[in-house]
Amino acid sequence: MSSAPKRIVVLGGGFGGVYAASFLEKMLRPEEAAIWLVNRENYFVYQPMLAEVISGSIGLTDVVSPIRRLCPRTQLVMREVEEIDLQNRVVAVSPGFRPRRLELPYDYLVISLGGITDFHGMPGMVEHTLPFRTLADAIILRNRVIHALEEADVETDPEFRRKLLTFVVGGGGFSGVEVVAELNDFVRGVARHYPRLPREEIRTVLVHSGERILPEMDEGLALFAQTLLSKRGVEMRLKDRLVAATSEKALLKSGGEIPAKTIVSTVPSAIAPVLKRLDCTKENGRLLVDEHLELRGYEGQVWVLGDCAFIRTASGKPVPPTAQHATREAHIVATNIRAAMGAGQRAAFRFEGLGKLGALGHNSAVAEILGVRVHGFPAWLLWRTIYLMKMPGLNRKVRVAADWFNALLFPPDLVQLSVHRASGIAEQHFAPGEVVFNQGDLGDCVYVIRKGECEVLREKEGAQQLLAVLADGDYFGEMAVLSDTSRNATVRARSAVDVLLIPKADFNKLKTTVPAFGEVFRALAKSRAPEPE
Amino acid sequence: MSSAPKRIVVLGGGFGGVYAASFLEKMLRPEEAAIWLVNRENYFVYQPMLAEVISGSIGLTDVVSPIRRLCPRTQLVMREVEEIDLQNRVVAVSPGFRPRRLELPYDYLVISLGGITDFHGMPGMVEHTLPFRTLADAIILRNRVIHALEEADVETDPEFRRKLLTFVVGGGGFSGVEVVAELNDFVRGVARHYPRLPREEIRTVLVHSGERILPEMDEGLALFAQTLLSKRGVEMRLKDRLVAATSEKALLKSGGEIPAKTIVSTVPSAIAPVLKRLDCTKENGRLLVDEHLELRGYEGQVWVLGDCAFIRTASGKPVPPTAQHATREAHIVATNIRAAMGAGQRAAFRFEGLGKLGALGHNSAVAEILGVRVHGFPAWLLWRTIYLMKMPGLNRKVRVAADWFNALLFPPDLVQLSVHRASGIAEQHFAPGEVVFNQGDLGDCVYVIRKGECEVLREKEGAQQLLAVLADGDYFGEMAVLSDTSRNATVRARSAVDVLLIPKADFNKLKTTVPAFGEVFRALAKSRAPEPE
Repeated sequence: MSSAPKRIVVLGGGFGGVYAASFLEKMLRPEEAAIWLVNRENYFVYQPMLAEVISGSIGLTDVVSPIRRLCPRTQLVMREVEEIDLQNRVVAVSPGFRPRRLELPYDYLVISLGGITDFHGMPGMVEHTLPFRTLADAIILRNRVIHALEEADVETDPEFRRKLLTFVVGGGGFSGVEVVAELNDFVRGVARHYPRLPREEIRTVLVHSGERILPEMDEGLALFAQTLLSKRGVEMRLKDRLVAATSEKALLKSGGEIPAKTIVSTVPSAIAPVLKRLDCTKENGRLLVDEHLELRGYEGQVWVLGDCAFIRTASGKPVPPTAQHATREAHIVATNIRAAMGAGQRAAFRFEGLGKLGALGHNSAVAEILGVRVHGFPAWLLWRTIYLMKMPGLNRKVRVAADWFNALLFPPDLVQLSVHRASGIAEQHFAPGEVVFNQGDLGDCVYVIRKGECEVLREKEGAQQLLAVLADGDYFGEMAVLSDTSRNATVRARSAVDVLLIPKADFNKLKTTVPAFGEVFRALAKSRAPEPE
Repeated sequence: MSSAPKRIVVLGGGFGGVYAASFLEKMLRPEEAAIWLVNRENYFVYQPMLAEVISGSIGLTDVVSPIRRLCPRTQLVMREVEEIDLQNRVVAVSPGFRPRRLELPYDYLVISLGGITDFHGMPGMVEHTLPFRTLADAIILRNRVIHALEEADVETDPEFRRKLLTFVVGGGGFSGVEVVAELNDFVRGVARHYPRLPREEIRTVLVHSGERILPEMDEGLALFAQTLLSKRGVEMRLKDRLVAATSEKALLKSGGEIPAKTIVSTVPSAIAPVLKRLDCTKENGRLLVDEHLELRGYEGQVWVLGDCAFIRTASGKPVPPTAQHATREAHIVATNIRAAMGAGQRAAFRFEGLGKLGALGHNSAVAEILGVRVHGFPAWLLWRTIYLMKMPGLNRKVRVAADWFNALLFPPDLVQLSVHRASGIAEQHFAPGEVVFNQGDLGDCVYVIRKGECEVLREKEGAQQLLAVLADGDYFGEMAVLSDTSRNATVRARSAVDVLLIPKADFNKLKTTVPAFGEVFRALAKSRAPEPE
């Protein structure tokens, strides 16, 4: 080996990336290798327990561990990966406090960037559904659920209240099942603090494309889970799936609709755009690697693992995206980097999995461990024990154990931890027939139609009068914002409509500082002003 | 009493509001009174422990309690107070999921809206300093501090790194001292996880207008606190105060400057605009009440307490804004509402205070209890015991005690819990001579000058060439954003400058949907295009 340490850059701070860095720290001395790790956050998320954040039964930050503590010798870079240059062996990351990219050259590269949620071709899903991958997602979902309960408690319109009290989860795999189980327990558990809420109006719905939930599991266990969740109040919509969403409802493939203000989607998954742009072989939309986890065409330089890699086990089956597989892949990657540096033999990935565990909330779970099937309370104890053992760091183990103990003694908590309120310019999707705003509403934003048709209607002496039809590129809603009054007409979508929404505060700032912008809307408002009555 | 229950509306969920609602629940039966409480959040913040959120020694949500649990019979409305109509006895609150205000009529009104941070006449303070009042403020400050450490760890420019490692706190009262003590302990405590950080570059600075800190306390104790904090590394800037801020530095009244990316201000305080607009007598900027805490002119209808009220004790001294006073005021208010409803006698506020407690971080505090002065570790134990006893709810007591126990065993945590990244259209302030952006930076936003003068400079063959001077209403920075390149010139403030900043993502959305907006910038960019070289 040469005298200068080799630069190893690890992309991603999930199970794959953090364990790879950790194994590298153990296998290579500081004078042999300088290890860098790039991750958007400075913590590692213990994914198997993420759903417990919804109910707050685990402290919000106890489900994550600081990466600097797990990999003390690794240089963490808390930025986004923006570009990977495989030819020149350089990774560019997003700017920090100053608008400058940072470039990280490497000798060896480990890619473990996981998946992203990709709603391509599903109208309104990006704007109106909540993903469930990161700690931020879990906290945002918790906040949304509590906000919906708070609002339902003061809502007098029963139809709107039912929408506030309906929670839809898309995807019946492990993640979706754990989310709907926690969510259902939580909502029904805290409802007693909202005395005016009609409890029978609470609905939790799991939408799943298969004939039964938990396709990864044995059929008997999956049916056990299905029966248990139904008994606890979760509605199942099987052989169906989410295809679109608006702020008022979920639209299903079957043509059905579920009126709801809170929609969570745990499918579908794709690799990050920065990986899509890479010029290398892909399979099933993921980066293809060989059994040594080396990227085709970049053997001895680039390794890929975790959810962004397409790997087959020795038996030929594709590797599922679980923590137990990712940590073992990480060990193979570290071993093979050491081999590339001239020490030891290359290893091949042959792990077939030890078992499967799925939590069902409220002291129940399903498990298949080394061929044995367990369900109910024993499975739940097993689930807790295994995951607590596997959780990295004594500090976290103690905290989580204390949290669980506390959760046994006290009911779930309903603190809504909302850190920001500012919304900013946003996109929205409306289904045909949906109301954008009602006559009499507060004028809180201005709209621009990006695609679709809207009709403008005025209520007068009980009759509804069509004032205008608006289409792509048309503006509306400026009048109430400019004159600081309430809406003088109702706007309704005629077709599926995508709009850009400019909140009043942003609109007013732009209006005063960019006069040409304000002028467009002032002229429009003038031309639309109603005749004096 | 009449047969229909009277409507009592309480505004504010701090010590004053929550304790008033709680006492009312005890003094009046459900058939006598329907109690409503309006608060922006669904939780009550246990203010004395808020600073501990910075270091994470208390779990992020353990310092707050759900209001619904503290006042189970009170109807909580999680909205903002927008208008109080004292004549018609109606309170209007902000919209929820739908753009409609809610109106709450009342028979009796309790106002306990606390204070807000008011930076009127202090340029750049709103944009570039962090307040410290709410749980969200505490979490945002914690995130900022960790972000600054992460960035400092990968920063190669020593001058910029020193700015990242400098933390300035304005105000040497209880709040400012507790914040700077926690912040100093935390930053120095976690620094060992950032091996490349030069620890001697870490600076924490407390700026205070008086001759000594903690003006509320006995001089001996204040000097003890001052010496202790200095020993731990806090710099004191006495007889000085913050007057302005930019993203790069704090500007002081003395003319001094402290280059720093993180500036916290714990002063000054004012009442909320909705209270300022009320047509009633004010003193020292607060609502004047009599010894029965009744609002002048609305006796028997409206009571005011806590930080937004101006109250004198029996001895004639103005009441300080502390929890012990607010809870006692709440009892007087509840008693007097009961009296107004015809039961029992009115009570007058005569409480003079039991003592004062201030935490200094790291197992130290100062206290004056019933005339006895204590400092150091005994005062810290006293501080913990008293506040743990006073904390409402057994659940919280257990959680906080467990947190403290955990904090004794394990070092502070450095998880950065950032829930959102979107920034949106914002305002910024620059001091004369400061650089807005540098030639070569990424083009991440477009600027509009609201006030002041900027110069555009180009570096060419080592020489700096003045290209233009821009003033109020001028745009700049559009070129790099439109052409997706880096900045081709440096822009520097000539005078104090206020700008509106439109982030690239928002700019692009507006450009495509509002053509007139895009046209302004395209024409400008064309007129400014450099000659081919």
